[in-house]
Amino acid sequence: MRTVDLIQKKKEGKKHTKEEIYFLVNGYTKGEVEDYQMSAWLMAVCFCGLDKEETAWMTQAFVDSGEVLDFSHISNFVADKHSTGGVGDKVTIVLIPLLASLGVTCAKLSGRGLGYTGGTVDKLESIPNFKCEMSKDEFMKQIKDINAAISSQSPNLTPADGKIYALRDVTATVDNKSLICASVVSKKIASGANSIVLDVKYGSGAFIKTKEEASELAQLMIETGALLGRKISAIISSMEQPLGTHIGNSLEIIESIEFLKGNYQKDLYDVTLEIAAKTLIAGDFCKTKEEAKEKIDNAIKSGLALETFKKIIAYQGANPDIVNDYTLFKQAENSYKLKAQKDGYIEELDALKIARACKLLGAGRDKKSDSIDPAAGCILNKKTGDEIKSGETLLTLYYNDVKDEKLNEAIDSANQAVKISLSKPYAKELIYAL
Amino acid sequence: MRTVDLIQKKKEGKKHTKEEIYFLVNGYTKGEVEDYQMSAWLMAVCFCGLDKEETAWMTQAFVDSGEVLDFSHISNFVADKHSTGGVGDKVTIVLIPLLASLGVTCAKLSGRGLGYTGGTVDKLESIPNFKCEMSKDEFMKQIKDINAAISSQSPNLTPADGKIYALRDVTATVDNKSLICASVVSKKIASGANSIVLDVKYGSGAFIKTKEEASELAQLMIETGALLGRKISAIISSMEQPLGTHIGNSLEIIESIEFLKGNYQKDLYDVTLEIAAKTLIAGDFCKTKEEAKEKIDNAIKSGLALETFKKIIAYQGANPDIVNDYTLFKQAENSYKLKAQKDGYIEELDALKIARACKLLGAGRDKKSDSIDPAAGCILNKKTGDEIKSGETLLTLYYNDVKDEKLNEAIDSANQAVKISLSKPYAKELIYAL
Repeated sequence: MRTVDLIQKKKEGKKHTKEEIYFLVNGYTKGEVEDYQMSAWLMAVCFCGLDKEETAWMTQAFVDSGEVLDFSHISNFVADKHSTGGVGDKVTIVLIPLLASLGVTCAKLSGRGLGYTGGTVDKLESIPNFKCEMSKDEFMKQIKDINAAISSQSPNLTPADGKIYALRDVTATVDNKSLICASVVSKKIASGANSIVLDVKYGSGAFIKTKEEASELAQLMIETGALLGRKISAIISSMEQPLGTHIGNSLEIIESIEFLKGNYQKDLYDVTLEIAAKTLIAGDFCKTKEEAKEKIDNAIKSGLALETFKKIIAYQGANPDIVNDYTLFKQAENSYKLKAQKDGYIEELDALKIARACKLLGAGRDKKSDSIDPAAGCILNKKTGDEIKSGETLLTLYYNDVKDEKLNEAIDSANQAVKISLSKPYAKELIYAL
Repeated sequence: MRTVDLIQKKKEGKKHTKEEIYFLVNGYTKGEVEDYQMSAWLMAVCFCGLDKEETAWMTQAFVDSGEVLDFSHISNFVADKHSTGGVGDKVTIVLIPLLASLGVTCAKLSGRGLGYTGGTVDKLESIPNFKCEMSKDEFMKQIKDINAAISSQSPNLTPADGKIYALRDVTATVDNKSLICASVVSKKIASGANSIVLDVKYGSGAFIKTKEEASELAQLMIETGALLGRKISAIISSMEQPLGTHIGNSLEIIESIEFLKGNYQKDLYDVTLEIAAKTLIAGDFCKTKEEAKEKIDNAIKSGLALETFKKIIAYQGANPDIVNDYTLFKQAENSYKLKAQKDGYIEELDALKIARACKLLGAGRDKKSDSIDPAAGCILNKKTGDEIKSGETLLTLYYNDVKDEKLNEAIDSANQAVKISLSKPYAKELIYAL
């Protein structure tokens, strides 16, 4: 088998065999297929696609390239979830303590964020001393003890994906559905979960712009799971406006804590419920979404979910008193209130523009080596559809040392994010369950 | 400017600016654009194309990456020709002495062959001691003295093309018209010619399979020349059957010598005449194709063309007596006559299958480091349209030490190349002048 012939084959739109996919993936991992050949092949894939079988083979080849975690000695039902990423998306942070408090084993591997906002690991690390880097043994022990751990990803899982993802990032070959699917699903399979719920987001604040594309990607990931004998379910959710009200690392932890205390925004609650219900039903913890809702509401009301989050915080090296004392977070020294210029209704609250404002204030990073200001971000006073009066605060930006130029750019971006209309806009659907 | 953004831009089918093309070409030559980024961009080009302006910019960027030869102190009209490659194509070898004997300054840079048959340099080197590697000074001096030199390509010309061509070869990105055009035309421009005639071949024995594609490529090269202020003309010629009767390195030199003695096949004469006439008219040596034909026929009849070839042979280190003593070539120890199994007419004489047979016998190479047997090859006794009787020789294969298995494969390929029909096939057009 010659790599150049396989590139030519895909360029001509032909289907690879399983052996050919393994040849490419393993050869690349071992350094036998060159970077410049893999990138040419990836570009051909962007134009000609991979079919469902090819996608499943690639996914399995990624899994086979590294370690696969095994929790069978701890539990025969291990839950995981994955979001394709959105602005203000703190679902993982509320979902894991909720599910764990209900007896679900949650083994969560998360990443840091690149681009506009931080990832789950960045958010959790805004809790002083919170540690996400843990050994496999520490990870396993914590899950056995308290049903849940949230760890940063191990380099031993799906190394082939790691190497290929780095190449895709610099060769404009990120946006192919099969490549995205293989990357996401292989990581979830290798992390040992039996039940995987995906939250595929679309809209301004997501990398997928339309509901149709999100639906296709979700369908592909479900089918890939099925072909590989793994139960994957998915929801599709809108990311036109940020999820919840808080955007930024420590701000999102604060909103998550408030959520677990029962003070939540409807959109964040709805997405969390949908994913939690799918997990609880898959694990035979209940039969219907109504039963799931009751269990979740009880976990919040009883304080058990918050208690579980405190345990996670304590196990992962930080002070759980922070849930009652937000001054323990690094504080933002400055804030800027953006006021409405006229009466009306919030018609648009563009997630991407809000995210850009937060990033300019220090909440995100471009390169892995860039540092993040955990205190930087934004709190929304209003969400889409809300009524507003001229002079009322739309949102507040939080920041520390930021150059005037960047601050002005951030304010400008936040300003452009908001559209006020005279009549109440029709309500748009948030979630489409698959 | 970021390379990844330029890859994305081409992937989306957008047009580059001149600065972007130069950024990519120069960056790659200097090692600032990575191999894996260039190959991803090249693959995107294969799918989305380059328009005429982008192609011209790329061509010029290739030219600008290295040295440009200047013959203005020798002549203000320097001719060059280029063939996209075919089986039995020895036009360069007869054309250069012909034109030089008529007073045309010919500065010919040629390559070695990869694939089925040798290149012009390989063919000339079948003349014992013939030297194609010469310094710029030697090249210039010979042209000044005898109007012609045929040299292997200098690495100082179009180094960007050299580096990109090597990458295209291993990433299945060879077959894009704009990339082919930039590679061919830049080399011709850098080699200093004022008049360039291209022979774009199509059919079984060419890498371009249809007349339409050949026509598009020729048109693009002419327009690229025009955009860069260089006069390029072209002919399109069929490569369904080999050109002439001899295929193989020394065999093609022998056929070329016979040509210059006046013993020629009509197809080889016609292609040579067409290219020669275009050159002579471009250089104001004559006004019409008829006048050109007269001059060429005279150059052959008078023996002047053959004398010029002998001068070239002598100048380039070999013994010119070889034109009258073919035993000075390395001889093939073995031969195999392929006989007709029935009466009829030659309907097909597939150039690719004949070439494959010759390569199996040692006439071609896969890698630059492979050696070639100059004596190996094939002489056709019949050409398409000729009548044949059962038992008559169709063609003869020549070879030295070849394993039985390869010999049988070669005979098989030669056998499959020939189709005999009962009725005389209609004559197909050989040349389309543009």
